[in-house]
Amino acid sequence: MKTVELLEEHSVLDGVQYKYRHRSESLNCSMTFSLFLPNKEKFPEPSLLWWLSGLTCTDDNFTHKAGAQRVAARLGIAMIMPDTSPRGKEIADSDDYDLGQGAGFYLNATQKPWSSHYKMYDYIIKELTSLVREEFHLIGPEFISGHSMGGHGALVLGLRNPKRFQSITAFAPIVNPSQVPWGIKAFENYLGDNKEDWAEWDAVELIKRYSDKKVPILIDQGDTDQFYKKELEPDKLVKVAKEKKYPLTVRMQSGYDHSYYTIATFIEEHLEFHMNQLKNIKPKE
Amino acid sequence: MKTVELLEEHSVLDGVQYKYRHRSESLNCSMTFSLFLPNKEKFPEPSLLWWLSGLTCTDDNFTHKAGAQRVAARLGIAMIMPDTSPRGKEIADSDDYDLGQGAGFYLNATQKPWSSHYKMYDYIIKELTSLVREEFHLIGPEFISGHSMGGHGALVLGLRNPKRFQSITAFAPIVNPSQVPWGIKAFENYLGDNKEDWAEWDAVELIKRYSDKKVPILIDQGDTDQFYKKELEPDKLVKVAKEKKYPLTVRMQSGYDHSYYTIATFIEEHLEFHMNQLKNIKPKE
Repeated sequence: MKTVELLEEHSVLDGVQYKYRHRSESLNCSMTFSLFLPNKEKFPEPSLLWWLSGLTCTDDNFTHKAGAQRVAARLGIAMIMPDTSPRGKEIADSDDYDLGQGAGFYLNATQKPWSSHYKMYDYIIKELTSLVREEFHLIGPEFISGHSMGGHGALVLGLRNPKRFQSITAFAPIVNPSQVPWGIKAFENYLGDNKEDWAEWDAVELIKRYSDKKVPILIDQGDTDQFYKKELEPDKLVKVAKEKKYPLTVRMQSGYDHSYYTIATFIEEHLEFHMNQLKNIKPKE
Repeated sequence: MKTVELLEEHSVLDGVQYKYRHRSESLNCSMTFSLFLPNKEKFPEPSLLWWLSGLTCTDDNFTHKAGAQRVAARLGIAMIMPDTSPRGKEIADSDDYDLGQGAGFYLNATQKPWSSHYKMYDYIIKELTSLVREEFHLIGPEFISGHSMGGHGALVLGLRNPKRFQSITAFAPIVNPSQVPWGIKAFENYLGDNKEDWAEWDAVELIKRYSDKKVPILIDQGDTDQFYKKELEPDKLVKVAKEKKYPLTVRMQSGYDHSYYTIATFIEEHLEFHMNQLKNIKPKE
């Protein structure tokens, strides 16, 4: 029996774009997600990209604006786009765009009033994972990618689950949330005052203490991104990655900003990066 | 002196996506439009595609969702995306999505209360044309394309200005508005009861009485489009085109619907169709 309700189904670029609703146990609310499947005959067992969106986004933004379906259809990649937080009138929220609904930060909140619903890490890594495996039989190799807050999510979820994700890419990620306004505000609210708890959800801190399988990371950062200096600063990640000899590539993109136009420009190279890692890794198995 | 106000500027796919605001004389209100320019060094004198959107759309829909910038950047095509009607609190409107603001139907209204602002034909064919030529020096060959109501617009504007547009393409166009609910409602309101006036804004009627230079037309129509039978029916255009030996290609696309996913799928072929016409035409000059 399907536990998901189909909301939309569209043919697009030799694949199908779906939008679903389901009841989430971990978030204790109704959630939507979007799913792209490449041509089933050509790719019966596709790879799976997890795409994590940024502040204020839903599952629609990347789905509508990135043009990724064209590339995923060609390379044989399924893509799942979760929403960015629990949703609903009964769910804790704030008037600010960077806290509460639309701003889940891909962590498990421990502080009231957030802790009863804001469990985006468990939702993605456990619940939605089981769902796509069981309902959609997506059991191929997995990659993770995201933008801004979702770039932070891709880095943290990827680094915490290196046996699962073959590679990580991000656009303009918040690499060191413990040290920047967006992250400090979120972590204080969701996690409380203990900085040791924050480190578990901070890519710079995770790489500092990293001792697991090193999953390659590619980051694109636009140099006219209005949040570059205040919230993002991938140099901080470059520094700790060098110290730990962690395989990280950060590309500064001249003239590119924080918008989905930047994602639309480079998403093809990100998906190709993921598929290339797969080729590199497979012979070693 | 620039008569336009820059609202947005984004690097995307080796080109730049702009959004502008200006005061329209013909519509007597403030309007926005979007403009994509391919790399100026590679394409100092690009061709120009006019994209006309459908009901409820603004200049944003195609700009955000079609993924056309990738193709236009490669082929050297500038693209202008006008809004779909005059806008503003002081402008006549209706509570229906298919009449009034967002539903200008690319004609010059003659009936009150619409006639004081709803002059989308003049706006595009005269005012915005002068603007892009003078402000942006876009004086290359021109094509026209659109979706649904905008497909109707592309057909009508193209057929009425065959010396100007090298080719016409449309996605799911309203080919015979005089005979379908969307068109009848719009024409009764904007044009009044005289059916002879309607014929001037109806592609089927224009081709019936056509005697000018024949500009090639390509149409894509999805067969799972929910409006296909009730509002669109390109077969009506095929019939009159055959009688007049008008160069029209209609492609039924199996499994494709009325959404922007269909546009994203086939926009590359439309832009290539336009550029190919240019190649065919140029040697004859």
